Order: sequence, then structure tokens, then C-alpha cells
Amino acid sequence: MAPSNEKPVKPGSQLKTPKGTRDWVGRDLLLRDHIFETATEVFRRHGGIPLDTPVFELREVLAGKYGEESRLIYNLEDQGGELCSLRYDLTVPFARWLAMHTDVKQVRRYQIAKVYRRDQPAIARGRLREFYQCDFDIAGAYDPMIPDAEILRVIVEVFRLLGLEISIKINHRQILDGLFAVAGVPSEQVRLISSAVDKLDKASWETVRQEMVEEKGLPAEVADRVGTYVRRSGSMHDIIQLLQSEPDLCANDSVKAGLADMGLLESYLQAMRIVDNVVFDLSLARGLDYYSGLIYEVIPSGDAQVGQVGSIAAGGRYDGLVGMYGKQPIPCVGLSFGVDRIFTILNARQESASHLTNETDVYIMAFGGKEYDGLILDRIGVASELWDAGIRAEFMPKVKPRPSGQSEASKGVPVAVILGQDELAAGQVRLKDMRGEDEEAIRRDRGRLVPRESLVGEVRKMLSG
Amino acid sequence: MAPSNEKPVKPGSQLKTPKGTRDWVGRDLLLRDHIFETATEVFRRHGGIPLDTPVFELREVLAGKYGEESRLIYNLEDQGGELCSLRYDLTVPFARWLAMHTDVKQVRRYQIAKVYRRDQPAIARGRLREFYQCDFDIAGAYDPMIPDAEILRVIVEVFRLLGLEISIKINHRQILDGLFAVAGVPSEQVRLISSAVDKLDKASWETVRQEMVEEKGLPAEVADRVGTYVRRSGSMHDIIQLLQSEPDLCANDSVKAGLADMGLLESYLQAMRIVDNVVFDLSLARGLDYYSGLIYEVIPSGDAQVGQVGSIAAGGRYDGLVGMYGKQPIPCVGLSFGVDRIFTILNARQESASHLTNETDVYIMAFGGKEYDGLILDRIGVASELWDAGIRAEFMPKVKPRPSGQSEASKGVPVAVILGQDELAAGQVRLKDMRGEDEEAIRRDRGRLVPRESLVGEVRKMLSG
Repeated sequence: MAPSNEKPVKPGSQLKTPKGTRDWVGRDLLLRDHIFETATEVFRRHGGIPLDTPVFELREVLAGKYGEESRLIYNLEDQGGELCSLRYDLTVPFARWLAMHTDVKQVRRYQIAKVYRRDQPAIARGRLREFYQCDFDIAGAYDPMIPDAEILRVIVEVFRLLGLEISIKINHRQILDGLFAVAGVPSEQVRLISSAVDKLDKASWETVRQEMVEEKGLPAEVADRVGTYVRRSGSMHDIIQLLQSEPDLCANDSVKAGLADMGLLESYLQAMRIVDNVVFDLSLARGLDYYSGLIYEVIPSGDAQVGQVGSIAAGGRYDGLVGMYGKQPIPCVGLSFGVDRIFTILNARQESASHLTNETDVYIMAFGGKEYDGLILDRIGVASELWDAGIRAEFMPKVKPRPSGQSEASKGVPVAVILGQDELAAGQVRLKDMRGEDEEAIRRDRGRLVPRESLVGEVRKMLSG
Repeated sequence: MAPSNEKPVKPGSQLKTPKGTRDWVGRDLLLRDHIFETATEVFRRHGGIPLDTPVFELREVLAGKYGEESRLIYNLEDQGGELCSLRYDLTVPFARWLAMHTDVKQVRRYQIAKVYRRDQPAIARGRLREFYQCDFDIAGAYDPMIPDAEILRVIVEVFRLLGLEISIKINHRQILDGLFAVAGVPSEQVRLISSAVDKLDKASWETVRQEMVEEKGLPAEVADRVGTYVRRSGSMHDIIQLLQSEPDLCANDSVKAGLADMGLLESYLQAMRIVDNVVFDLSLARGLDYYSGLIYEVIPSGDAQVGQVGSIAAGGRYDGLVGMYGKQPIPCVGLSFGVDRIFTILNARQESASHLTNETDVYIMAFGGKEYDGLILDRIGVASELWDAGIRAEFMPKVKPRPSGQSEASKGVPVAVILGQDELAAGQVRLKDMRGEDEEAIRRDRGRLVPRESLVGEVRKMLSG
């Protein structure tokens, strides 16, 4: 029956997914699910509660949260009713949820969902317009840096379980802002200069300096002071000492407050035995507006470095965001895993097999002589018994399939059940082990006869053996 | 740090999720995941391969697939570039995927994802504008009704595992179209009358007759013939016999073809031992345009009937859809579970506890005399050991928490680890079992001393015991 108002795709217009999006299928998806399950296990180990929010939010909820990046937000068409936009991250929806539930003063929530950015896609580097984020956040008024330390611990645990070597770059917004102030950056320019400095992981100092001086009009000598301050990284211990040894910096209240935090954090990370996973990098700035304290970015290290995937997790403290909704202010700290980038790394390790192979345990086929009628009802009956037992079973959905077709379809399936008219009449079926190297031998082997009624048990034995 | 271009939500505008959407949190989500995991297990048991498609598609991909319902499609704003719309179901994206991959001649795919309809929401009945669908489809040219029968088997297996009593209403588009033709419905009116007839599960015959005659201008005697034909349901066996006993109906080619299918289906459902789960209901029509053969709808039966949730799963055969993309035509049959409605039923069974309780195994607290300093580093150290062992552990993220606060926070956690200055000095910690009725007794019990180094083992014993 043809749809009433059928309107086939114009010939010539090619069939595709929208720009910057892709389909996921088969083994790719199972690998991605493995990442999700690993993260979820750790999140719950740390008291995490799952949250799921709508894929679009009221436009005003997203307004004024992302600074320059707001232009990348996808809007829904005005079809009457409310103005909505696709979520840009999972942090703002979480803050909106917190602001809506004023009874919730503290919570640890995790959310794994897709987010949307009208960005220039770079599929090879795992950068898409629709991509997954995997967030864990601790909300609540606690003592300084204790939740922050636990978030870093969560990062280490997840990548440990995934078997990925990583390094966590950390910095502190208050220290950064203080450095800029001492260097002589006008306060209204701090965010601009900050985002320029943030490029130091990809661009050379000369390039960044040029951007600050020529594009952003920063005096050359100020830019150079900024350069000497931010182009330093090392262990928490060393950088904290270095900063403390510079009176003009310590004289700045913002730097002083940040340093106190970092001192606490170091002791907590030692107690958590992960202080060696952390690098204190004064050039780390992070783009988003809403960070207010500790910020961090995770990069692959060792043999986990595959091409230019960039940071594979990131986050920070955002104490001001929830309050922006005019309700209770709740201090928060959180992290977000770049699932697609992590996938890119893990996938590069796997040998690529067919992506459409399922994991059937048993293939049921029928062979026979000239009076052979395909035994469809018998094949269905056997399959139903196996399904009842929770065993993955398949058969060729044809009344009288060719033997060759059935053999072809059963490739890679460990166990075959072979039905024949005479065997069935004698209350028997053939069981055949399809595993092993020698295809020729497998082909010749006609399988062993087992009583029809003990089939399920026999199959179980073969699969477990 | 206040965001540079902060724009708080206007006072007065209330904070909410968009109309027809909701947040999911805590136990609700875990219950929903249980539904997903159950369905996935069955899908894979039947050879299913997972597919994930973008949340939006090129607008032309959705065009002309949904008939009247197309007006409910959400469009993305034209922000330059391609015109896109949010997916309306998972069937059309699957057909688009098949049409794109001309190498794939046959596949069994499942997809669990949200779909979007600008419909009148009815939250109480689990009807939202953003809701989950959970689809399993068998694509490929096989012998008639064999895949169709397996799809019905999948439905039965999933609801069996979920512990829900159901009944599957089935009908055949060709039989229905034939009945209309014999009754004298003009072919251009078939879809209109079809959707009127589809309301017979909710509305009385009088109401439906009125709609057909007065609104859709069908002659009264034609409407009455339609009525006598479609207001019949029963076992497959009975209805097939009934139709075969009416020469004027059997003379119609469309009815004849449909009846042949239904006869085959009955034999296959018998072999699958699920024929008793099926009711042949001639009034079932299904709204969507693209169905071409068998159609079905699952309704809760027995004690699974909770309020007016409507159908909890539905589907049918759509052999024409993939061909609409001007590529290879591939016959398909599939089903979609109404996850939110199934959730509503299962949730009504659960006693509602707090939705924000996590499942922490161990709570680590510190008590002490006047020189008590909170032992934060020791609490962190113990927690880290437990985390390393994969145990869910929490502690109060404060340097010097009040004992009362810790006791409060540990409510419902099975095991408590209690740290004290003196015990730690002696290389010991206290372990306390928090399970049991008598709160008073639990409060008095100070726990038993165990050596610090055997803590993890002792905790494991307590949790397993």
C-alpha cells in the first residue's frame, strides 16, 4: 500500500544524515555502551544518582550561560508555543533542575546524553555536531576542595577501568584571574585574554602573543608578563611553591585564595593516592564562562595518544551558575567525559571485524533428500524452545531454504542444530560444533545425534564447554 | 566569577521544562533502564544488532511518511545550512539507513531512543511530546509471515520477562482494505474511514458511525456494512473461518491475499506456542500510512490494566517504505514498545520510596573527644581503599563534620566504618552493621574493632552476609 501523500526524496538529492551527525551501528555501539557502563559503575560507586533531562530546553534557560559559544546553539523553529533550543551541554540543564527543586540542597548526579553544537565538524578527530557527554557532578555546600578532589578521583578510576593512560591538567580560575590582574590586564579583558591563553596547548606562544597584542590590543609588555606567568606547569608541589615564592603574586587576594585551595587539594589528592596523575598547568583556562574555581582537562598519555583527539574529559567548579536562576545558590563541581573521543582511542585498538555481526549462539537448519520440505514448523519449534531457555537462536526465515544458504548464514555461530525428517521421526536431532580452524573438517562433520527432548541441556553444555 | 554576559531568567517567568517534557531522576530512571535491558536481552536473543541515529534528520527524509500526523513534526530553526526536523519515530530513520546502505540486504536491528511529537500531552497517561521508543525490526526478503511471527514472539517474550499480562490485537491491512472495498467505500476514502474505524477501541460504534457518515460523508448503508464487517474479533482460527465462510468477501483479491497470510501466521504462531496470546480484531487499523500487511497492537490484560494507558506496543509490516527513497526496496516488519506507558504500569506496582536515594554500601564517619579534628585525611584514605575494591563508599565532605550530621547522612547505608583517633593510633577501625529494625539498638552499638589493614575484607564479608 503506497502512503496516501507519498513524496519520495527528490532524485539527485543524496540520502545522508545531517551535517556533523552520524549513525552508530553494531560493534561500535557495543563499544560505546562499554564506556557508558564503565563510567556508570564508578559514578554509582561514588554515590551518583542518574538524571535524564529533555533534549531541548526553554531558550531563556540557556541564555547567557556560554559566553561567545552561545552562537553555536541549535534553536527549534517557532511553530507556536514556547521558544526552545537543543541542549548545549548537560551542566546547564542540571543547574536548571537544581534551581527547580529547592528542596534538594545536595546531590551527586550523573547523566549520559547527547548534546548539540553548530560547530565546524571534524569527524576524524571525533568532533561532531551531535555528540555524547557523560557527566558527574557534586552539588552542595561542603568544605573547600573535598568534593573537587573526589571528582578528580572519579576521573582516575574511570580511565583506569578503561585501561587508558591519562594526565589531568589542573588550574584555578582565581589564580588565573589574579595573574592577569597583576600582569596588568584590564578586568573587562580578562575573559578574552583567558581564552587566548587557553590555546597554548595547541598554538605556539608567538601566535598567542600576537592574538593578544594585535587582535585584542593588549600592550606588548603586559602580554609578555602574562606569558612569563602562565607558561609554567609541573607538579602541584612545585608550582605551589613557585607561586608562593613570588611576593607580588601572593599579594593579590585572588591568587592567595586560589593558592589556599590548591594547597588543600594537594593534601586530599595525596590521601586519595592520585596526586601523581595531576599536572598544575597555569595556561589552562577553559572556555566556558561559568567556572569559578578549580578547572581541569584530561589528556591521553603514554600509548593512549592516538592522533589529535584533544582533551577526553574536562570540568571544574561552578558556584555561581545555579544562583543565576534567581533561586537558591548551590555550589557545584563536576566533570564531563568526551565519549566520542574516548571511543576513537579505544576503537583504534580493536581489530575491525564486521560491524553487523550479531552474537547468535545457535543456528537451526534443516537438510533432507528429495521429499525434503524445509521442516519450517520444526525449525520454529526448536528455536522457540531455545528462546524460552534464554539462548540466542536463529534460523533461515524461509519455508524451504537451500542448504548452501543455511550454511552461509550460520558462519561464525558456535553451535548448529540440524534437523532431518528421519531423525525427527526417531525423536532425534543433530548437534554440531561449528568452532575450530579446519573449515573442511567442520563441513564434513555431520554432527552427533541427541534425543530431541534433551536438546536444550545439550546445547547449554556445548556453549559452556 | 559572574559570566561576562550574564542574563538571568526574567523574574516572574517560572523555571520549567518545555511543555510535554519532563525530567527523569533516580529510581524512575533505574526502572526505565530495567525495561531497556529486558527488551535488549530479548532483541539480542533474536539476533538483533543495535543502531543509533541522529535525533534530527534532513526534513526531506521525513517528508510524506506520516500522512495526517506530519503536522506534529518538530522542525529545527533555519540557522543557515540544511533544513532538519526532530525524528518522529525510529522506523523512518531505520528505513533511511537501509536505503543508504545498499550492501545491507537483510538485518535485524534494534534501537532505543527518544522521539518527538508536537501533540497534546497527557502526562498522567504517560503521553508526552518527548518520549522513548524501543524498536526491533526484521528487514529482508523472506518467505511470508515467518519474520512477522517472530516479531510477535519477541513481544510475548519481553512482556513475559517484565511480568506483564498482555493481549496482542492483530489485523491485516489487505483484509481491511478489501472489507472496505466490498462494503462500498470509495478507494480515496479508505485511509480516512480506516482511521475512524481505528477509534472503535475507545469510542462507541454510534460515535464512529456518526463520524463516518456526517463528517466524512459516507452513505449510511455503506457505513453499516463497514460496521458489520469490522466489529468482529476473536481467535485467529474463528475469525479466519468466519471470513472464509463469506463468499462475497473471499471473492475480493485483497481479502484473499490477507487471509492466506493469516492462515500461515496461525500455523507459525502455533509452532511458537503463542497463538493464544493473539486476538484477531478486524477493527484494528493503525494510523500510520506506511503499513502494508500485518498490523498489531499490544494492550495490557489481567492485573496489568492500570487506568487508560492505551496500547503499550505496536507495529506491523511496511514493505514499501524503504523503496520510497528511490533505492532498493526492502520488505520490513517491526514493532515499537511504548516505554513510558510500560513504565507507568510497572511504576504503579512499586511502593514509592525516595527517588533520590543512591545505593551506597559503606558510610565512613569519624567521632572523637575534644581534640577531635574530623580525621578528614583518614576518612578519604579509607574511602579510597574501598573505591579501589569497587565498593560504593561515601563520607561527609567536611573537614570536621558534626556526629549528628554523619549519622543522619548514613541512614539506610548497610555498613558504617567509624574512625577514632585512639583506634587509628592502635591500627584499628570500628565496623558497624546498620541494618535491622531497632534504631535505638543500632544507635547504642559502637561497632566491633577490626585491624585497619583487613578492613576491605571485613567489609566484603559484612556486605555479602
